[in-house]
Amino acid sequence: MKEFWSKRARDLVPYTPGEQPRQRNWIKLNTNENPYPPSQKALAAIRAAAGETLRLYPDPECTSLREALAATFDLKPAQVFVGNGSDEVLALCFQAFFDPERTILFPDVTYSFYPVFADLYGLSYREVPLDERFGLPLESFVGDNGGVVIANPNAPTGRAVSLCDIRTLLEGNPESVVIVDEAYVDFGAQSAVPLIDSYPNLVVVQTMSKSRALAGLRVGFALGNENLIAALNSVKNSFNSYTLDRLALAGAEGALRDGDYLRAITMKISSTRDWAADRLKRMGFEVSDSAANFLFISHPDIPAKVLLDGLRERGILVRWWDKPRISNYLRITVGTDQEMEALCQALTQMIEGA
Amino acid sequence: MKEFWSKRARDLVPYTPGEQPRQRNWIKLNTNENPYPPSQKALAAIRAAAGETLRLYPDPECTSLREALAATFDLKPAQVFVGNGSDEVLALCFQAFFDPERTILFPDVTYSFYPVFADLYGLSYREVPLDERFGLPLESFVGDNGGVVIANPNAPTGRAVSLCDIRTLLEGNPESVVIVDEAYVDFGAQSAVPLIDSYPNLVVVQTMSKSRALAGLRVGFALGNENLIAALNSVKNSFNSYTLDRLALAGAEGALRDGDYLRAITMKISSTRDWAADRLKRMGFEVSDSAANFLFISHPDIPAKVLLDGLRERGILVRWWDKPRISNYLRITVGTDQEMEALCQALTQMIEGA
Repeated sequence: MKEFWSKRARDLVPYTPGEQPRQRNWIKLNTNENPYPPSQKALAAIRAAAGETLRLYPDPECTSLREALAATFDLKPAQVFVGNGSDEVLALCFQAFFDPERTILFPDVTYSFYPVFADLYGLSYREVPLDERFGLPLESFVGDNGGVVIANPNAPTGRAVSLCDIRTLLEGNPESVVIVDEAYVDFGAQSAVPLIDSYPNLVVVQTMSKSRALAGLRVGFALGNENLIAALNSVKNSFNSYTLDRLALAGAEGALRDGDYLRAITMKISSTRDWAADRLKRMGFEVSDSAANFLFISHPDIPAKVLLDGLRERGILVRWWDKPRISNYLRITVGTDQEMEALCQALTQMIEGA
Repeated sequence: MKEFWSKRARDLVPYTPGEQPRQRNWIKLNTNENPYPPSQKALAAIRAAAGETLRLYPDPECTSLREALAATFDLKPAQVFVGNGSDEVLALCFQAFFDPERTILFPDVTYSFYPVFADLYGLSYREVPLDERFGLPLESFVGDNGGVVIANPNAPTGRAVSLCDIRTLLEGNPESVVIVDEAYVDFGAQSAVPLIDSYPNLVVVQTMSKSRALAGLRVGFALGNENLIAALNSVKNSFNSYTLDRLALAGAEGALRDGDYLRAITMKISSTRDWAADRLKRMGFEVSDSAANFLFISHPDIPAKVLLDGLRERGILVRWWDKPRISNYLRITVGTDQEMEALCQALTQMIEGA
């Protein structure tokens, strides 16, 4: 029954996030969360903000956090936009930069929220096929289009493109906005942030959910030319005056003050990823080169769905999609060494039992 | 310069919230915040949530908070939707329930975010004139329309309508969704929540920003028929999987466990409002009957803009709009007794000096 629903709402097929079990006894490798706790500086800032001032609205312009982000990335505050997680930031980008009349482009295998945003805002889009090894065919993203969205590293493959390739995309699309979704960039890819001053059509989106271990806080941000950031502000201020609460603002700023911790946990996760990838290859898995905090793997003999179910029986959650091209792959978040050891042992049992 | 902006973004006129000064030395009566601190139970719940689990995403379905709200309002959890402040909830309602082809109705004098939401989503609307005393002409809200939005009590007038009037609106619009924005209901109006089981076209929107003294936490909610709530979920899940962070979820649930405190502070604020209204009337002001935590006042001799500036010089922030019909009114948030005393003294000085 969809009586009273708007036409748009009736036709939506919402995004489905990975499961968030309410019990804590799972090895949870399904939503690319960080296995390490947030920075103590973030937690201390949150506790300090949990007081009387919560009766007051937050700063709608998020001035202090934007200043801290600008300092971190060597930009001006007017080149920084913050939002309630990078999903919200991306949604606002789709509204701010894309028009229904012109087709936007993104890969056929990528973050599956992009087509959902496009449908929500009535935008037409084309899913450009990646090559057989999930590489980005640059030439197919150049030419007449209404905008380009890529994730670097890409999800769920983990594959990264070079800054040189990003430049090619930017120079090949001088009339369109190119959004580079860098949710996972801190785990080993090159950020496009240094290109911002050279390309007025570049928007870089990042998040505090992954490398900063703050998925529960909901803070994402966009970096780009001041003119593009002004468009995001205009849309945001027509939607919700105060998208970040005082605790998220305080915690995010606390996390930015702890660059050493960011480097320590991202290096640790990258090193865990690399040994786990080697081990899985030796077990017979195809493992794509990942610059992210997850691995995208496929076994020549055992279907991914069978592995998904078998892992679940053994208390391990990973992610699988019933979709063309990737239905024989699992995406596995890089956890702690112990969690990855448990994963490898569980997969070994299944392979040996098969 | 609006190069690269979408057509929609170019045409937006964003909502302007009241000023949030970064210094704390103002008497801040401009954004209808609560002068009393949040419940200690809310603050304790937030501090308890500020730990390791912030590395994990929140529950995208906000199950625990929705259960607590359902218990509070004697509804089922499937009749409850929660969002990142009632502005977000209202924006999602406009997307979920209204179509561009059918004109929606709201009063000419009301929360000025409604026309902004309509423009953002390309909806046509008609602003129905309130009567001379800012009363709601019920008959003008019945008949062919694509939806009705009213605030009860209304902003910025503070005037409330009865449940009987709400029933008339619901029964007169069986084909349209009627949104009743009850941001200020706890200060003295009748809530329409008891009508939810009888009217499949009713959506009630409330917030924790005002009566619960949690404007800094960003929690709003919608209550209605399960079918309407399902539409909101569909739109929300096509926009942002996790709109509430773990701290907001925890704090809101903590606040709900403290009904005694809610009653104590809302009664105190209502009583302060009533004496301040009497005092202002005796000073010569026209003061509309307010069921909210603010007063809407006008002086026969001194223009509102002059009073606004004079109060600002005296360290007191209130709200004024340069808009038809209301440009000679000030909206003044009800603060503590001391703050209202200071307000009355400042206004007395100005009147005597005029």
